[in-house]
Amino acid sequence: MALKGNLLVGQSGGPTAVINASLAGLIEEAKNHEEIEAIYGMEHGVEGLLLEEIVDLGSESDETISLLPNTPSAALGSCRKKLGEDDSERLLTILKAHNIRYLFYIGGNDSADTSHRIGALADEAGWEMHVVGIPKTVDNDLAYTDHCPGYGSVARFNALATRDAGLDTRALYSVDTVKIIETMGRNAGWITAATALAREQADDPPHLIYLPERTFDRERFLADVKREVEKGQGCVIAVCEGLRDESGQPLVSFKHAVGTDSFGHKQLGGVGDYLVNLIAEELGIKARFDKAGTIQRSSGIAQSGTDVAEAKMLGAAAVRRACESVTDQMVTLQRVSQKPYRCETALAPLADVANAERPVPDEFINEQGNYVTPAFLDYARPLIGGPLPPYARLKMSRVSKQTAS
Amino acid sequence: MALKGNLLVGQSGGPTAVINASLAGLIEEAKNHEEIEAIYGMEHGVEGLLLEEIVDLGSESDETISLLPNTPSAALGSCRKKLGEDDSERLLTILKAHNIRYLFYIGGNDSADTSHRIGALADEAGWEMHVVGIPKTVDNDLAYTDHCPGYGSVARFNALATRDAGLDTRALYSVDTVKIIETMGRNAGWITAATALAREQADDPPHLIYLPERTFDRERFLADVKREVEKGQGCVIAVCEGLRDESGQPLVSFKHAVGTDSFGHKQLGGVGDYLVNLIAEELGIKARFDKAGTIQRSSGIAQSGTDVAEAKMLGAAAVRRACESVTDQMVTLQRVSQKPYRCETALAPLADVANAERPVPDEFINEQGNYVTPAFLDYARPLIGGPLPPYARLKMSRVSKQTAS
Repeated sequence: MALKGNLLVGQSGGPTAVINASLAGLIEEAKNHEEIEAIYGMEHGVEGLLLEEIVDLGSESDETISLLPNTPSAALGSCRKKLGEDDSERLLTILKAHNIRYLFYIGGNDSADTSHRIGALADEAGWEMHVVGIPKTVDNDLAYTDHCPGYGSVARFNALATRDAGLDTRALYSVDTVKIIETMGRNAGWITAATALAREQADDPPHLIYLPERTFDRERFLADVKREVEKGQGCVIAVCEGLRDESGQPLVSFKHAVGTDSFGHKQLGGVGDYLVNLIAEELGIKARFDKAGTIQRSSGIAQSGTDVAEAKMLGAAAVRRACESVTDQMVTLQRVSQKPYRCETALAPLADVANAERPVPDEFINEQGNYVTPAFLDYARPLIGGPLPPYARLKMSRVSKQTAS
Repeated sequence: MALKGNLLVGQSGGPTAVINASLAGLIEEAKNHEEIEAIYGMEHGVEGLLLEEIVDLGSESDETISLLPNTPSAALGSCRKKLGEDDSERLLTILKAHNIRYLFYIGGNDSADTSHRIGALADEAGWEMHVVGIPKTVDNDLAYTDHCPGYGSVARFNALATRDAGLDTRALYSVDTVKIIETMGRNAGWITAATALAREQADDPPHLIYLPERTFDRERFLADVKREVEKGQGCVIAVCEGLRDESGQPLVSFKHAVGTDSFGHKQLGGVGDYLVNLIAEELGIKARFDKAGTIQRSSGIAQSGTDVAEAKMLGAAAVRRACESVTDQMVTLQRVSQKPYRCETALAPLADVANAERPVPDEFINEQGNYVTPAFLDYARPLIGGPLPPYARLKMSRVSKQTAS
């Protein structure tokens, strides 16, 4: 007999462009299941749950739910809270008081860990509850899934932004010769790699890509940049915020803020900053950096249709599986066909997901460590959704010279 | 009798999302005029012209031209070259050798100056040539025109990006409490002001806006931020890269690049950087900054349809006017109706445009100097094109508490 009770869903970690699509898929599917009585949401994930800040999602209009998939960022609010030992009792009390029998947490590996621990807690206490995780992270670094919802959209943003910023550099290369595109990613270079996804011709940007999976080598970097600049069209370089040197230190500038009170306080600047300085000082070339920051991860501007559809599918699948008594698992994506591209949902134990990280594998990085391989492009291209808008390429046929120069 | 001869067009200054739309409008219109024989383009503006790097635009396919309006950045290449006295003779020789009778330069006030000077040069030499400027600048700081092509698109980008990055801050405000959106703009705050254009409700982002038209007051800024943060939903602050303090100094961090060779070299960090440090040190609050950089100005992601259409219209109008023997003028936009919004083209002397700058006027900035006024929103809203995609807003109705907290 089906377990009757209420559903509770939360969103956790860095927001994405499609975390609300998973929420929408989940809410719509939940309405099809009689055993699910009320549909509740945690405000700001477990942070709000511990304060018993719970909202009634069943009372949201169909129109609101229909707009959710195309609304970026976490509509329920998010958090980065790790549960402490002290939280267990309070948590259980609240879950029981609201008769929560179906629990869903949308997030990355920290969230998988949280979900796993809540499930274990309920289990120990003899509180029957089905816990299913729903993957979400722009970083694309979860194991056991072909890719993570959120990645396709941040990848599309960076592919388009790099194409555009690259055209900008080419047009004005005599002034702004080098452009650094600093992307998110911390320990994994998936997002940075995606800057290559709009490239069509050999001299299209980006010209160099540096991922945190490879140690940053200052001399090789400078040699790479010099060589590219000498081609005379400017140089666009995609770098991950998480780059580190051979001693494992992040590439950062130390700076002193100006002003009487604040003088002397050290703060860290980002890698874009660092490289602009390095190129200026060592090569005497003017560089600038673009750092879209959170604009890239919560972008409604460049949502991938594929990403939206998959995020929604996972939200719905999580409910279906939980209603089949699946628990302590995360729903995942499995690529069942490459041409045409198609993913189905599968399952992986929450504890396994929690303890694994998936860096960009060797076969996706070129030997020199300064670009991605065609294998990466094959993997990632289907994820960014429909075709990119075509751009004009002028032939630029030179008129014969009529004067002596 | 119409002056027969060849047409030459160049693009200059910082690229925009629609400078190619002006080029397309110009090429298409030129084909309708029998007196125009060949349609030529300068590579990289007058920089290429002085090298006699001229391309045949008449040989580009109709398909290529039809893709141009939606292709961002300057397809002909751009430059920031100012003509020197030495360049005059060479320039005239090249113009005459290619029988250039119609000259068009798409750019900002420096470009208007260049166009004016080339026209004067030809005049003195008795070389009959019609010179018409076409406005272009994301900065929107040209006088004598309602607004500048390129502005509508950078405004749309920043309106959308601020809405999205603002949702991101709200979702995760307990972790990333303050977000700085650093926009382009140098001396004029038009781009920064545009971050408010997607705002619908009083507590929507951005919460504070600082323009370079007002002196940056450190203490008032900190008080503003503190007040907004205390509302408990995070705080999104739009700032212009060109902010200056009471001594006229730009807000920058001095930094020391790490590394043996480079130690001690000072470089300037941006205003986003500076404010993140200031907020951390003075208020003890974590802030981060997003700096879309050139992604904002050359964005194909967020082109404004209105901007594209107007840029194209101006390119065509410039040709028509030149063929009516207009010279030494820039085509401009004149708002003839606000509801429904409609602009027509007009003319202004190149020399006047060259010598004027238009900052954001007082009536567009609030008394406290930390936001824009409704009058600004009325002015700018029509420029960003069609409606912004609607987002879901959850009601978030709280479920009654069932436990003692």
